[in-house]
Amino acid sequence: MPEIVIMKEIRGKNEDHAKANRERFAEDHVLVVNVMGAPGAGKTSLIMALCKALKKTGIKCSVIEGDLYSTIDTDSFISAGFDSLQINTEGECHIDAAVIRQGYDRLKCADGVLFIENVGNLICPAEFDLGEDIRLIAASVPEGDDKPYKYVPMYSYVDAVVLTKCDLKEAVGFDTDHFTRGLRALNDAPVFETSARNEEEACGMDPVAGFIAERYRALG
Amino acid sequence: MPEIVIMKEIRGKNEDHAKANRERFAEDHVLVVNVMGAPGAGKTSLIMALCKALKKTGIKCSVIEGDLYSTIDTDSFISAGFDSLQINTEGECHIDAAVIRQGYDRLKCADGVLFIENVGNLICPAEFDLGEDIRLIAASVPEGDDKPYKYVPMYSYVDAVVLTKCDLKEAVGFDTDHFTRGLRALNDAPVFETSARNEEEACGMDPVAGFIAERYRALG
Repeated sequence: MPEIVIMKEIRGKNEDHAKANRERFAEDHVLVVNVMGAPGAGKTSLIMALCKALKKTGIKCSVIEGDLYSTIDTDSFISAGFDSLQINTEGECHIDAAVIRQGYDRLKCADGVLFIENVGNLICPAEFDLGEDIRLIAASVPEGDDKPYKYVPMYSYVDAVVLTKCDLKEAVGFDTDHFTRGLRALNDAPVFETSARNEEEACGMDPVAGFIAERYRALG
Repeated sequence: MPEIVIMKEIRGKNEDHAKANRERFAEDHVLVVNVMGAPGAGKTSLIMALCKALKKTGIKCSVIEGDLYSTIDTDSFISAGFDSLQINTEGECHIDAAVIRQGYDRLKCADGVLFIENVGNLICPAEFDLGEDIRLIAASVPEGDDKPYKYVPMYSYVDAVVLTKCDLKEAVGFDTDHFTRGLRALNDAPVFETSARNEEEACGMDPVAGFIAERYRALG
């Protein structure tokens, strides 16, 4: 059974907690990646593939999993040998900086990359700075190529866009140019194309892992 | 350019506005279907196919579209000859009963079915009764078969589950039994299987339209 932190209302502004987190992460030499996306966008599979790719380059990875109730995804990371902790929001639509700090204090993340899997939601998480270094969206191809036009705050908020389930592009008629035009109206974030139908067939992960590794090494 | 209502905070409890809506809908002999689902679940395509199927049986349909900012979907309904009005939440993660009443007063819905397309979100809309008769979730197969285990409040809240993009079942390895077991732990809502890759190939819509038509005719 993984460790579970239940999110509760904590005094103070989220921005103050986020600032404190950011200072602590820097002291500990931890690069924090906040992975956001719609329900079923493939956030967990993406993080798993990135953890494995980064581990090969000698970078330690840990994962904080945010979900309304279950521990399904944390169980997977622990089985795969990564330090992982569950935050359950008990129905809340996002995670906040205060609960991340509670979770962080129980994981040993120093000198590595910490992935935070946010609650599956394209709206509310864009209002809560967690103190992260990279805001990454997993955007699944079956969601459609119109999402940057509709979920403007989220697509404005992110530093990197990872298209997932790209093996389904043809089946769903995904127009990459249309997607990218919508994104570019808001944001110059790099776009990576991946698929992770299963572990053996994960494609396109190395460039994303490289982008994260470069930012980690730049911590000094 | 479609008519747009911008959602603002209105005095009073949502439950009171919802109760007033429900009374008004009944007086007007309107069956209201609140269509919820994740971003990109295929809510718009589903509603379009249902409007067309119901129209063939002589039932008039109208659509209120909820979105953060755009009018993309309302434009489609107006082009297809259905009365439609846009609600823009300007970043809010759900629509509420008060804004539905504002939109409703501008559409002529009497003696028919009104579809409300909620904001793409599997969490917050389950906290806002709109005064609807049917709460329907569009659950897309590529989101994965574990969603009822993770989005417990939403899957507890709905009266009908429409699986969308079922043509992708094999490609994504969707386990219908696993999905249904998760749902049945919460809810005995009927499950319909559909796909609407394009208008010509829309499959499985008649049973859903029949379910709605039966409820409409039961209004008396």
